Amino acid sequence: METEYILIKNALILNPIDNDKNKAIESYKGSVLIENDKIIEISNDISSNNIYNNANNNVDKVIDAENKILMPGLINTHTHASMDLFRGLADDMPLHQWLEEHIWPTEAGLNGEYCYTGALLAAIEMIKSGTTTFNDMYFYMEDIAKAVDESGIRASLSYGMIDFGDKEKRENEFKENISLIKNCNNTADGRITTMFGPHSPFTASKELLERVRKEADEYNVGIHIHMNETKKEVEDVVESTGNRPFEYLNDIGFLKDDIIAAHGVWLSEEEIAIIKENNIKISHNPCSNMKLSSGIAPVDKLLNNNVCVSIGTDGAASNNNLDMFEEMKFASLLQKVNTMNPQSLPSDKVLKMATLNGAKSLGLEKEIGSIEVGKKADIILIDTNTPNFTPMSNIPSSNIVYSANGSNVNTTICNGKILMENRKLTNLNEEEILEKSKIAIKELIDKRD
Amino acid sequence: METEYILIKNALILNPIDNDKNKAIESYKGSVLIENDKIIEISNDISSNNIYNNANNNVDKVIDAENKILMPGLINTHTHASMDLFRGLADDMPLHQWLEEHIWPTEAGLNGEYCYTGALLAAIEMIKSGTTTFNDMYFYMEDIAKAVDESGIRASLSYGMIDFGDKEKRENEFKENISLIKNCNNTADGRITTMFGPHSPFTASKELLERVRKEADEYNVGIHIHMNETKKEVEDVVESTGNRPFEYLNDIGFLKDDIIAAHGVWLSEEEIAIIKENNIKISHNPCSNMKLSSGIAPVDKLLNNNVCVSIGTDGAASNNNLDMFEEMKFASLLQKVNTMNPQSLPSDKVLKMATLNGAKSLGLEKEIGSIEVGKKADIILIDTNTPNFTPMSNIPSSNIVYSANGSNVNTTICNGKILMENRKLTNLNEEEILEKSKIAIKELIDKRD
Repeated sequence: METEYILIKNALILNPIDNDKNKAIESYKGSVLIENDKIIEISNDISSNNIYNNANNNVDKVIDAENKILMPGLINTHTHASMDLFRGLADDMPLHQWLEEHIWPTEAGLNGEYCYTGALLAAIEMIKSGTTTFNDMYFYMEDIAKAVDESGIRASLSYGMIDFGDKEKRENEFKENISLIKNCNNTADGRITTMFGPHSPFTASKELLERVRKEADEYNVGIHIHMNETKKEVEDVVESTGNRPFEYLNDIGFLKDDIIAAHGVWLSEEEIAIIKENNIKISHNPCSNMKLSSGIAPVDKLLNNNVCVSIGTDGAASNNNLDMFEEMKFASLLQKVNTMNPQSLPSDKVLKMATLNGAKSLGLEKEIGSIEVGKKADIILIDTNTPNFTPMSNIPSSNIVYSANGSNVNTTICNGKILMENRKLTNLNEEEILEKSKIAIKELIDKRD
Repeated sequence: METEYILIKNALILNPIDNDKNKAIESYKGSVLIENDKIIEISNDISSNNIYNNANNNVDKVIDAENKILMPGLINTHTHASMDLFRGLADDMPLHQWLEEHIWPTEAGLNGEYCYTGALLAAIEMIKSGTTTFNDMYFYMEDIAKAVDESGIRASLSYGMIDFGDKEKRENEFKENISLIKNCNNTADGRITTMFGPHSPFTASKELLERVRKEADEYNVGIHIHMNETKKEVEDVVESTGNRPFEYLNDIGFLKDDIIAAHGVWLSEEEIAIIKENNIKISHNPCSNMKLSSGIAPVDKLLNNNVCVSIGTDGAASNNNLDMFEEMKFASLLQKVNTMNPQSLPSDKVLKMATLNGAKSLGLEKEIGSIEVGKKADIILIDTNTPNFTPMSNIPSSNIVYSANGSNVNTTICNGKILMENRKLTNLNEEEILEKSKIAIKELIDKRD
């Protein structure tokens, strides 16, 4: 393969940082040089160094990012991409009715082809709203891997393991998840990584959870799990185990720093201490938690305890979109009103949650999550010459978190490949995928009825 | 003026209704014929009646709305348009610091020209996100009227009257507000109406409020006021008057059905009864209330009491945008999590709040707020052939409230004039207004420092 260079000039670079206690985001004017899949140079003086010389000699593509923000692609740390097909399938109803009368009966008709189509639809939605990495748990994960491969996006994939104590079911779940790991881990030029996906402590047995811990260590992959989403499920775990969910998992030796736990809405002080001690990562999903009336996660408290909290959209069936810009605003505003403290989750902190914290949560901190030499080129450009970005604050993350939505993203680059430029997708057939998606949900509903 | 016809064909029409207790929105495929500023015909069988014949003979413009939703333009019932200049000026801080250190010192430098520019910026933002009417309270309102006139949007304008008990200041405030009424009411082809704008019961004296009541009756205009936004201001009114704000206003004979009260966050049972009894309209501003940590308005309870609640964005300084689609999602999800009832504020009800309830709240129910023959043609078209509208639910408002944002609006028509088509503004110079806005806030900050 020939070496390819992309130079992005004159951008306002926004970068999440860890080395400054008082600052979550640094910003400066500069240029970024990409060689194949990696960032190889960042400079705020392009005329005096290599970046300039490279630019003049070898660069295949030059993007003038004047009036644009350059920042890391957003990282969605909890979703079920294929559920994009279920957008608007059922709203405004209690969780059990939503699941039992609508989601589960429709899911029963799924197959690999439908999940592949749904994942492509989700990939389009994410690329067009500036997300370059997503953390997914669902079924037919190897079909979803195929959609990830083709779409050019990055993903961490896990199979949603549910056994309800049934041994045969359990064996099948391990077969599925291990097959996913063996066939897909580090594929698609390294864009696909994998995890184990035990669904939750109330749908997966102790035996399943204990074996997941062992296998995750053996395969050296992380664990993606739903935790403490609703009050009822916490009460159910207390009833069946005598302990709250994180206490229970701690007792059985499940907890380690390779776990990303989605939701974390209902947490006791003791559980927050356990999360902190074990360096568990929490994926906060404010829209889904609000829409399903699950509750409000204590994100401000978790961050004050130095817990790594990132942001996820959950699936489109309970959100109902995958726009991480919107999710950032919900995350911040929900904490502000819940704590009655307007200083909660300031915009810089929220932007770091949606980028660098996401990378850490997926064990991809060395690869993605910030604009640094040596990291993968997962980059988005935001056009600031628009009404909702006018004027620009001294704190550039303000407009990003409080005023923007996904449509402000102009260009999306993942692993050094341009997936969208000037709002046009470069490698997916949008019209065709939308059409296939409409047919898919129609067929799924017909099957069900 | 020559008679002009616009025919919009094959749309999915969404229309808020009052005549069905169990239904807030009706939807059907149909076509709409516009004559000058009015809707003159709506049909679901265009081939068999006048609409078809008119279309073939006299129609100046035919829009094929296949794959588009046609619905009333959104009505933003509480904002301060010119504050678009203050977007991102100050975030993430307590209200008093926000006001005293940032907003008030910057406002001190305002003049008519700046307010005009800010209102044009807001008009662009609103037109591009599907809002066709806004209810505004600020200073230099005749300059804002000029921006409304030029931009083609519809507005209800009031001057923010503050006297803090000072008689001279009070006289000035009446002079300003009455001048606005005399010079601007029913101007711009009827697109501009006016109200009195007593700022709030804690910034306006009893004398001011009593005289507003009298003058409003005399001029036959409504009243726009901030009410019960923060816990502290309610406590202050209790301390100074012995009564909670709505009780106080009831006692002094201020209350009537021509009042739109913004916020209504902190309301006692007694106050809700007073609101209901006097048919006071409440403008709910969820983003601003959350961002400033003001609190959560009891919207679900108000609606269950048959109070007319509409939706506002508040100014961009505390939101930080004017996107009513985003505001609808915030309104619904905030109630769902606050009441722990996912059935709160279903999407149809929210869409009605943002349209027909808005019209009622501004005394414009006979003019706007729904798609009906004889009403003004304030219409938006939403492109549904996009990733975040795929698939479409059986309940079309689902995607509108839970998945859309303002960028999904393809065409905006106000008073029969196309203000945006295929996302391009037809009568405002976007580039120039963005540039002027950037200069304006720079000058205002320089003045201040």
